[in-house]
Amino acid sequence: MFHLHKQEGRARRGSFETVHGTIQTPVFMNVGTAGAIKGAVSTMDLETIGTQVELSNTYHLHVRPGDELIKSLGGLHKFMNWSRPILTDSGGFQVFSLAGLRKIKEEGVYFNSHIDGRRIFMGPEESIQIQSNLGSTIAMAFDECAPHDASRDYVEASVARTTRWLIRCRDKLRELNGREDTINPHQMLFGINQGTTFADIRIEHAKRISELDLDGYAVGGLAVGETHAQMYEILDVTLPHLPENKPRYLMGVGTPANILEGVARGIDFFDCVYPSRNGRHGHVYTNSGKLNLFNKQYERDMRPIEEGCGCPACQSYSRAYIRHLLKAGEMLGMRLCVLHNLYFYNQMMTEIRDAIDGGCFAEYKKRKLSAVQGELC
Amino acid sequence: MFHLHKQEGRARRGSFETVHGTIQTPVFMNVGTAGAIKGAVSTMDLETIGTQVELSNTYHLHVRPGDELIKSLGGLHKFMNWSRPILTDSGGFQVFSLAGLRKIKEEGVYFNSHIDGRRIFMGPEESIQIQSNLGSTIAMAFDECAPHDASRDYVEASVARTTRWLIRCRDKLRELNGREDTINPHQMLFGINQGTTFADIRIEHAKRISELDLDGYAVGGLAVGETHAQMYEILDVTLPHLPENKPRYLMGVGTPANILEGVARGIDFFDCVYPSRNGRHGHVYTNSGKLNLFNKQYERDMRPIEEGCGCPACQSYSRAYIRHLLKAGEMLGMRLCVLHNLYFYNQMMTEIRDAIDGGCFAEYKKRKLSAVQGELC
Repeated sequence: MFHLHKQEGRARRGSFETVHGTIQTPVFMNVGTAGAIKGAVSTMDLETIGTQVELSNTYHLHVRPGDELIKSLGGLHKFMNWSRPILTDSGGFQVFSLAGLRKIKEEGVYFNSHIDGRRIFMGPEESIQIQSNLGSTIAMAFDECAPHDASRDYVEASVARTTRWLIRCRDKLRELNGREDTINPHQMLFGINQGTTFADIRIEHAKRISELDLDGYAVGGLAVGETHAQMYEILDVTLPHLPENKPRYLMGVGTPANILEGVARGIDFFDCVYPSRNGRHGHVYTNSGKLNLFNKQYERDMRPIEEGCGCPACQSYSRAYIRHLLKAGEMLGMRLCVLHNLYFYNQMMTEIRDAIDGGCFAEYKKRKLSAVQGELC
Repeated sequence: MFHLHKQEGRARRGSFETVHGTIQTPVFMNVGTAGAIKGAVSTMDLETIGTQVELSNTYHLHVRPGDELIKSLGGLHKFMNWSRPILTDSGGFQVFSLAGLRKIKEEGVYFNSHIDGRRIFMGPEESIQIQSNLGSTIAMAFDECAPHDASRDYVEASVARTTRWLIRCRDKLRELNGREDTINPHQMLFGINQGTTFADIRIEHAKRISELDLDGYAVGGLAVGETHAQMYEILDVTLPHLPENKPRYLMGVGTPANILEGVARGIDFFDCVYPSRNGRHGHVYTNSGKLNLFNKQYERDMRPIEEGCGCPACQSYSRAYIRHLLKAGEMLGMRLCVLHNLYFYNQMMTEIRDAIDGGCFAEYKKRKLSAVQGELC
């Protein structure tokens, strides 16, 4: 159940009740692909850095260790020891980006595993079955994320199929939630809006899926090659056609600037691998732009990554020490940078929520955009 | 200052006062080669897992990031944010095991850096200068660790040179401790007994270095290829010739069984890379032997690594989850195994101290040796 507490322009301050606790929105979900955030970050760390929702990848967990194994051990929450909300993607994006030799049919997608090459089939029912086995809080619909430069004809046909797949996802989840041996009988489903950069296709699709009264709605297929201006324009024209009383999730986005712009347009949920991936490469976020800790200039810099930051890295270690760890190939260097970056993102979301609560989001956004210079792209 | 509180047979229960706090002995030092324990373990973690002394490698820190840099930033304690005792080795062992094209002369050793191949010279004065720059609590003398199968003639000459080097180390440290800009003016020096498996050379050398009234004495050059029986025999004959009122450190040793046997023979300090190296390979210690978490049998095992263990891994995660992380190449898997193994070692040392305090070390040793089966070699 989504509650809309306050609005400033199109920016929304809300809360989303789930069986695993209430999510305060806008929220940034922290990506733990294989049931763990890369960079030696544990679920205990997630509590420390203020994570509300963990996001796991259905495709990865299906391939290894296997969703049936996770179900037999009591579900993903128990497996990874995380009691708060988990969102699982549908596996569709990985099928389209990672797997080899894929063939799209009405029933679903045939493809080769990126690990052992074996032939796998995944359709709407299979994706939902896997997500039900994992027992996540929120399941995502199985969709096709069409290439951003696909032809209008291709996109129209793809979106129509994605709508048919969405109905099959909804029906399958309804069935599984009613079974006795299900891990999470309250599992929720978010539908996904597609249509690349064709505004009219996006709008028609948004209207069509809104009729299905799902638990939430995502905007997918963005940040995959189009410009940021195009992405913001699609949000501007599409979001008014999604239900006001349901959360809206902008998938796979993005930089701090992208998130501020997304919130300003009415987005409630975000996720992105940037903070963890950048952290593993020694790139850390601050309110004066991103730093590359491999740079020589930090060799003798005994300041924390950011003065006043409350993350475990800044509370105890200097730029000079973390740079040394990164140069020496010590895993601890990556871990500290990832912890800092995720904290930075989570903290920014807290600031955003406070700003909307206080009616000063527009001002906050302007100040933060100027602070995170270089992240505007 | 070393205080001997209690003895049971030759096993000793003591405490060693340092400028960075008191060390309860027997103690196992946790090895953080490049100023960090491998496996993404931070100094905050070390407090959690009960570490008393961190051991850093002089050679590694000299090569990268450089001891002068660390001195200019306030010393190693400040650099890595660890306020408790640090022992630095002399760099000698690494020079003899890692570096290329080495040439041993009376003044010291010429060798090539294992990182960039550049020609480096290290003698007693250089080693002590580096350790003084790092500002460790305890510096180790620069010695030659002769091959375990070296001829008697070679070993005699080598040990004599090591004694001359030791005097130069002592004199150099005395000078540096007196300087105004020194990081730790109370830096202590441990001498190192050598002699491979020649009992009479070991004994003569022990007597000779005991005259120097150093802060402590190490037995070096063991666990480098000789049998465990030979190692124990050397301890049996050598230790009676080291001063009773100084701590004794068995370098680079070893398995839990080696440590129990070392304590029984009067050793107070130990260090070894086994727990962290084994952890990174998914091999974890328990009181029913070592487990290889990569094994299929742990796939569905929801028990912690060891029931009742207080380490961060066992408090929150199952064998099945950690196995999944290891198989998926997630750094978190290594981190959890390393934390468990170091905790296991530190906890064993607590048990050993309690047993000597309680006068039941012999009984404890027998029970633990039988528990850590497979670690006896």
